[in-house]
Amino acid sequence: MMKFEHVSLPQRVRFGTGGARENLAAEIEAFGASRVMVIATEGGRELAHTVADGQPVVRWHHEVVMHVPVEVAERAREAAEADRVDALVCIGGGSATGLAKAVALTSGLPIVAVPTTYAGSEATNMWGLTEGARKTTGVDDKVLPRAIVYDAALTVGLPVELSVASGLNALAHCVDSMWAPRADPIDRALAAEGIRALRLGLPQIVKEPAGIEGREYALYGAYLSAHAFASAGSGLHHKICHVLGGMFNLPHAQTHAVVLPHVLAFNAPYADDARRLIAAAFDASDAVEGLRQLREELDAPRALRDLGMPGDGIAAAADAVLAAVPPGNPRPVTRENIAELLSAAWEGNDPR
Amino acid sequence: MMKFEHVSLPQRVRFGTGGARENLAAEIEAFGASRVMVIATEGGRELAHTVADGQPVVRWHHEVVMHVPVEVAERAREAAEADRVDALVCIGGGSATGLAKAVALTSGLPIVAVPTTYAGSEATNMWGLTEGARKTTGVDDKVLPRAIVYDAALTVGLPVELSVASGLNALAHCVDSMWAPRADPIDRALAAEGIRALRLGLPQIVKEPAGIEGREYALYGAYLSAHAFASAGSGLHHKICHVLGGMFNLPHAQTHAVVLPHVLAFNAPYADDARRLIAAAFDASDAVEGLRQLREELDAPRALRDLGMPGDGIAAAADAVLAAVPPGNPRPVTRENIAELLSAAWEGNDPR
Repeated sequence: MMKFEHVSLPQRVRFGTGGARENLAAEIEAFGASRVMVIATEGGRELAHTVADGQPVVRWHHEVVMHVPVEVAERAREAAEADRVDALVCIGGGSATGLAKAVALTSGLPIVAVPTTYAGSEATNMWGLTEGARKTTGVDDKVLPRAIVYDAALTVGLPVELSVASGLNALAHCVDSMWAPRADPIDRALAAEGIRALRLGLPQIVKEPAGIEGREYALYGAYLSAHAFASAGSGLHHKICHVLGGMFNLPHAQTHAVVLPHVLAFNAPYADDARRLIAAAFDASDAVEGLRQLREELDAPRALRDLGMPGDGIAAAADAVLAAVPPGNPRPVTRENIAELLSAAWEGNDPR
Repeated sequence: MMKFEHVSLPQRVRFGTGGARENLAAEIEAFGASRVMVIATEGGRELAHTVADGQPVVRWHHEVVMHVPVEVAERAREAAEADRVDALVCIGGGSATGLAKAVALTSGLPIVAVPTTYAGSEATNMWGLTEGARKTTGVDDKVLPRAIVYDAALTVGLPVELSVASGLNALAHCVDSMWAPRADPIDRALAAEGIRALRLGLPQIVKEPAGIEGREYALYGAYLSAHAFASAGSGLHHKICHVLGGMFNLPHAQTHAVVLPHVLAFNAPYADDARRLIAAAFDASDAVEGLRQLREELDAPRALRDLGMPGDGIAAAADAVLAAVPPGNPRPVTRENIAELLSAAWEGNDPR
């Protein structure tokens, strides 16, 4: 029996290498905007000017901070109000997009996102703000950018290591979207397409960092992963990484890279459709084997112990994961099998 | 180089066999609607009552006519206005959906569609009206139903022959979405998923017309085909069928069934991605062979001459198709190769 609910959110994607200026201009014209605020980091100032010059920009806003601290969001909101801004353009990675979303959340202003990384935030209706050490997140359609302008040429400057880490996080969202709580067949089809794109793109970036084709596939794959994630939600993989990150302060991207194959091997025998889709997307006879090959090509990290997780932390982590297992995970999770998964990931064993 | 534009239109899909009443109620509540107009054919009156009873219906409207004549649309619009309707619910096939769209076009009223066939109109922003013999069509986001309630149990009454014809038309939209003028990689991924669903569903409907699984797959596939079609537009296949239908008054669905394999064989050698995607969706080693097998299982018609097309009409038809070839068709179309295609379809030869 097929039973699901799927929500398509309104968004226009313009994808074309070298087309950022032209496509951004088209979107600003489509909005009828005449007072634009551009949001980009200090480091991204030059690139932002290259892309947005010629547009009716009334404010270049460069105070962009990771995780969007509330006071930073407040200053951006005040700036937008003071300058009677009628559209937001964020040019950059997750932090620039996040700040634009914070402004849109209270002002309702439309956003055009011009991503320069594979973070994917531009394709979701999720926002986040931090106050001190506390992060608040939420879902609101107001923060979904009305349009995304993808230009792979803007991502060529992203270092290889960061590109691979960011790409593997996107891959993890694709895999996790197969069994996340709200996963539906449409999410799965898009996630499979995302896996295919990332599988093609990431090795090319490693081989030829300045090449465009690998960057295009990675950017396209990152979009699909975020699209699927926004609809399906977080699955077991992301819950595990969240627990490990919080308990042991492990590096985010590397943790994903280590944990993903173990979660895939854990769930795959209990998820026929996902296994078949993932294998086909990897162009491999088997899902787990397909991911193994890709990780080998990318020389991805293998063991949690190399990332600084203490071996005696496994038991406590297993308990914490057990308390956070997302509904609908295909394989029943027990204290024992999750501790086994974590041990294998800690040791760096081949996932089974 | 990857270059495309993709628009996601806002729509919620609730899919669940036996859930129509409950899911419709949830949508009407989500709209906050209190004065609903239900649109359904005379023949669909009973089913409409079963689904919508208990809802705040102020008007049951049963004057539904194929191709939405303008005077029928006018009367429905007047009824909606007279009764101060605040939401439209269409329960039925393409004609009921089409009438609801005609009312939404001028009134802006939101639509919930409850489809009982595999027509797919509920997933597009396209409308059509006829005045005398003249059909006007257009695209307007106002006519896109805000929500679709899919319940495969409502389609069990659809006769097998009509189900197969309607399903093959959906399949043709999926195949044609691979190379239609605005086709993008996302359309292709969704169209491939649609082919997979229809390939699984249609033979099951033939074997067991009252079975639910085949109906679920067909309904899901029809949704995807319309979704992809709305984004990608009409490709060569639909242009050919349009020309043949207009010139020789051939039966719509059967014409699609005969022509599709010939267009696939015609374009496939020039469209690597499409060929690979279609083959995989058919779970076959080859796209053309996959479609051949399915058509054999469905005992689909093979020859245009059996449908009443005169053999001496081929030359004129080739000219007319040549004048209407959609931009971006992967294989260059000439008077000669299109006449060859039409001859093979007329004879009922194996597509090459």
